Parts: sequence; structure tokens; C-alpha cells
Amino acid sequence: MDALQRIEQALAAALSLGLADDGPPKLARAVRHAVQTPGSRARPRLLLAVADACGDDVPAVSDAAAASLELLHCASLVHDDMPVFDDADTRRGAPTVHRLFAQHGEQLALLTGDGLIVLAFENLAWHTRGHPQRLGPLTLIIARAVGVGHGIVAGQAWECETDVDLTQYHRQKTAALFSAATAAGAAAAGVEPAPWCSLGEHLGLAYQVADDLRDVAGDAAALGKPIGQDATHARPSAVSQLGIDGAIARLEDLLTAAVDAIPDCPGRAKLAAMAQAEMERLLPAQLRAASRVARP
Amino acid sequence: MDALQRIEQALAAALSLGLADDGPPKLARAVRHAVQTPGSRARPRLLLAVADACGDDVPAVSDAAAASLELLHCASLVHDDMPVFDDADTRRGAPTVHRLFAQHGEQLALLTGDGLIVLAFENLAWHTRGHPQRLGPLTLIIARAVGVGHGIVAGQAWECETDVDLTQYHRQKTAALFSAATAAGAAAAGVEPAPWCSLGEHLGLAYQVADDLRDVAGDAAALGKPIGQDATHARPSAVSQLGIDGAIARLEDLLTAAVDAIPDCPGRAKLAAMAQAEMERLLPAQLRAASRVARP
Repeated sequence: MDALQRIEQALAAALSLGLADDGPPKLARAVRHAVQTPGSRARPRLLLAVADACGDDVPAVSDAAAASLELLHCASLVHDDMPVFDDADTRRGAPTVHRLFAQHGEQLALLTGDGLIVLAFENLAWHTRGHPQRLGPLTLIIARAVGVGHGIVAGQAWECETDVDLTQYHRQKTAALFSAATAAGAAAAGVEPAPWCSLGEHLGLAYQVADDLRDVAGDAAALGKPIGQDATHARPSAVSQLGIDGAIARLEDLLTAAVDAIPDCPGRAKLAAMAQAEMERLLPAQLRAASRVARP
Repeated sequence: MDALQRIEQALAAALSLGLADDGPPKLARAVRHAVQTPGSRARPRLLLAVADACGDDVPAVSDAAAASLELLHCASLVHDDMPVFDDADTRRGAPTVHRLFAQHGEQLALLTGDGLIVLAFENLAWHTRGHPQRLGPLTLIIARAVGVGHGIVAGQAWECETDVDLTQYHRQKTAALFSAATAAGAAAAGVEPAPWCSLGEHLGLAYQVADDLRDVAGDAAALGKPIGQDATHARPSAVSQLGIDGAIARLEDLLTAAVDAIPDCPGRAKLAAMAQAEMERLLPAQLRAASRVARP
């Protein structure tokens, strides 16, 4: 089974674990929509790639960690898309959760995000029943990546402040979950996670720069979400700070740093190739030729 | 140290764990406000009372479970008070989180609720480092009490449906967290939690009936939140369904059932007295004389 199949299967298992047959039907529909609308699954794929490089001795645990990480990412998308933040109509080429219902859409979106956060931790606890020593480290890695200190929630909250450090903002809003992906991939395989954080951190920062570039030079249909959002919401962006060429140069530097940060292991070359391919996929077509990222 | 002191200390420890000195300051203020505005702490007090009755062999674990349960309760209050649900101005005698800021109040309230859910699980994982076998059961008990299947999130989502079963609605919206309090109190002390669920379930249902009674016959100043909310939001309520006398009779039956459900243990009499006192505290003064609940 390839990584994407493992992830979709693990997400389906998490939904079965959390949703009840006799639960409120609209919420169940909203939760399934938020999770099962096809996405890139970039974070859980990275987690499984690192778990693989670390031996992946208990695939049930790495699968659960991958699904939980994606559930948290989905939760953040549902809440970020709500009118109180981005007021986005589409996500992953489909209606956003709050747009899915003629009535109570915002209420259901709020509850869906809350429920997905809870389910992420329930799912992790359930699938580590046979390996209780791995639950604590995984919970801490994943919780910190989304939390109020230095996680996604903190990153998003910088949008409510007047003085914002762009690096800290991006590190928390995006890189934190990538860093958690690599650390959790190691921890899921019973390997010390600390040496793996730097790879995820650099990839996450690169991912955010690519996202900023796509927001100005991408195609809404291909992205499945509206473009021009950073300018609309006056959000800090690598492009507004560095210009397009500067942002591309920064992306190249971050990718090089990411590859350099891969700990010595048998899967090193495979991981480096994956990081390179991922960045090529993310860069808008019209910018690809100008960039060293896409060089063969 | 009494239970309330233990709870406040455990909540302060959770906040220190989650919040970072260099994190976004408005979010930190919102999170502290949501947690540290004085509340009854009914759920964590119940958890500690059961842990005590079960021997409380590792107080650091029961303290953490108590704090995590209260963090989840606070998260649900912050989100329920938002304009998308109750649009409440006050809570616990203070401004609601979204009313605390001249700008970005709703965004900060949304993020505060999200962050508190995450912190609840992080806190549990951190304080069970020395007792990893207890983390899984506690995480599952607490997650299910708030989740999309039969937890608080499901309970709240019934408000978005047209066909609502009042018992299921109350069981999920309120009783689930009380049932988790008693089950987690046992699990925190290393005792099989299942026999303890029924006590919490009945107390939680009684608590919801008392809350419905206070919503029609209570005093907003004493409650610290607006009254008449069920009628305003056309929410299902024990009073609208059974009338005031019927709701009082139901409260009495539930309290009797709760006391009967206490498993045989040395702390049985102490727990029964606590349940009785709690219900007396919750019943509006003008209804107390008419009720057997308050008889000596």
C-alpha cells in the first residue's frame, strides 16, 4: 500500500472511531466533508516518509499519528476559512464547511473544527493502546505544534497583533506542523525525535513561501481556493516582504537547508528527492523555469 | 490543600505549560481570562472527589486530569458564548472573551477555544510522563466526553438539527463531561473507570436541569451570565418540556439515582453529601423551599 492509501485509510478509521451512528447528522456530514475532500496530505506524507526512514516498526502507530496530524490541519483550515477570519467560499476545490449548509453553517464549522481537534488526540490514544510508551511523546509533539505557545493557534493569533515578526508568524502558522510531522514520524517509530525537527521546520518555512507565491502567481482553479488572500486580508507575506524573486531565492535556500538537515540514515536520498519533488509541485508553473528549485 | 486550591494550582501549571513568554500577547490575555475568571469548578471538584474515594495514589495525575477537564469546559464556554451561538456579553460575572477586546475579539475567542482544547491534551500528556499507562485511558475518557460522537460538540450540534431528543441533547451537552469527571477520577487513581460513569451521568443530567431552572428563575447577577437564554435561542429545556414543578421533581429523581449509583467504597457517604450540597447550591433560592433536594 502506498503512503497516500495508508493515510486515507487511517483517516477513515479515525472518522469511524469518532463519529457515532446516532450522532447529529449535519455535524457528521460537515466532519466528513472537512476530512475527506481530497487534499495534498503533505504533512502526513512527510510523517510517514520519516517513519519509514526510521524503520517504521509499528505502522499502526505511524498511520494514526499521520491521520491525527492531518485532522488538526483540516481543523485549522475549517476555522481559518470562517467569516471571522478569511471568509473563504472554497477550499480544496469544494465549498468550505460553513458554506456547505443553507442554515447553521458557521455553527457547524465552529463545531467541526473543535471536534477534529478532539478526534486527533482520541485517535492517537486509541491506536497506541498496544504501545503506551509512544503516546505521551507523540501527544506532546503534536499538541505543541498546534498550541497557544508556539503552534498554529499562536501563529494565527499574530494576525490580531500590530507588531508581527514574519519569521515567527510563519514558523508557527505553517512550519510548526511540518516540524511536528518529521518529529512525530521519528517518535512513531520509537526513534529520538529531536534530530528530525530541523528538516520539518525548513520544509514548513519553504512550504509557506511557496504558498505565498501561489497566492500572487497561482491559479485559483488549480489551487482549489481563492488567490490574492494575503493582500485582501493585509496579511504578512514573503512576497510582500521580499518581492517575487526574493521569495523564490528564499525558497531555494530553505530547501537546501532542509535537505542538509536530514539526519544520517539509510533513507536519506529518498527523503531528499521527496522534498525536492514536493517543492516543484508547489511552485506555480510560471515561476518554475526561473527557479533553481525545479532544475533537474 | 483543599480541592479548589489544587484545581487552581493545576490550572496555573497548565497555563504555564502552554503559554510562551514570546507568544502573541492578546491571545495569552484571552486564554488567561477564559481560565482564571473564578468559576464553580464543579467538574474538576467532582473528579478529585472520586479520585480521593479511589485512593488518589498519584495526586499529580488527578490534578492534571482535573485541570484538563476544566480547560475543555472553559473552551466550550468561550465558543458557546460567541455571536455565532449565544452572543453572550458576560460569563462568570466578567466579559466574555469575544467582548474583552475592542478589535479582533471574535478571532481571539475562536483561537482561545481551540487552544484550550489542545492544551487540555498536552497538559494530560505532560503530567503523566511518570505514569504512561494512565495517559491512554484518561485521554480516551476525556476526548469522548467532548467529541463529535456523543460528547459536548455533538450535544451542541443538536442545536443545528430540527429533530432533537432532549435526553440525548442534555446527556451530551452537559452530562458527558460529568460522566467523564467521575470516570477520569477513577482512572487517574488507577481504578477501573466503568463503574463510576453512572454517578457522573446522573449528576450531569441533574446539573443541566438545575441550569434550566436557573435560566428561568435565577438571578443574572448571582449567576454571572444572562438569564432567559433558552427561550431567547428557542433551545430545548427541561422547564419548557416539564414545567417548573416537573423539572424540580426530575432533579430530585436524578439526585437520588446519582447517590444510588456510587460504587461501594470507603468514601461513599462523603461523595453522597457532596452531591447533595452541590444540588442545593445550584437550585435557585426561590425554588429551594419547594424541593426535597434541599431538605436536611
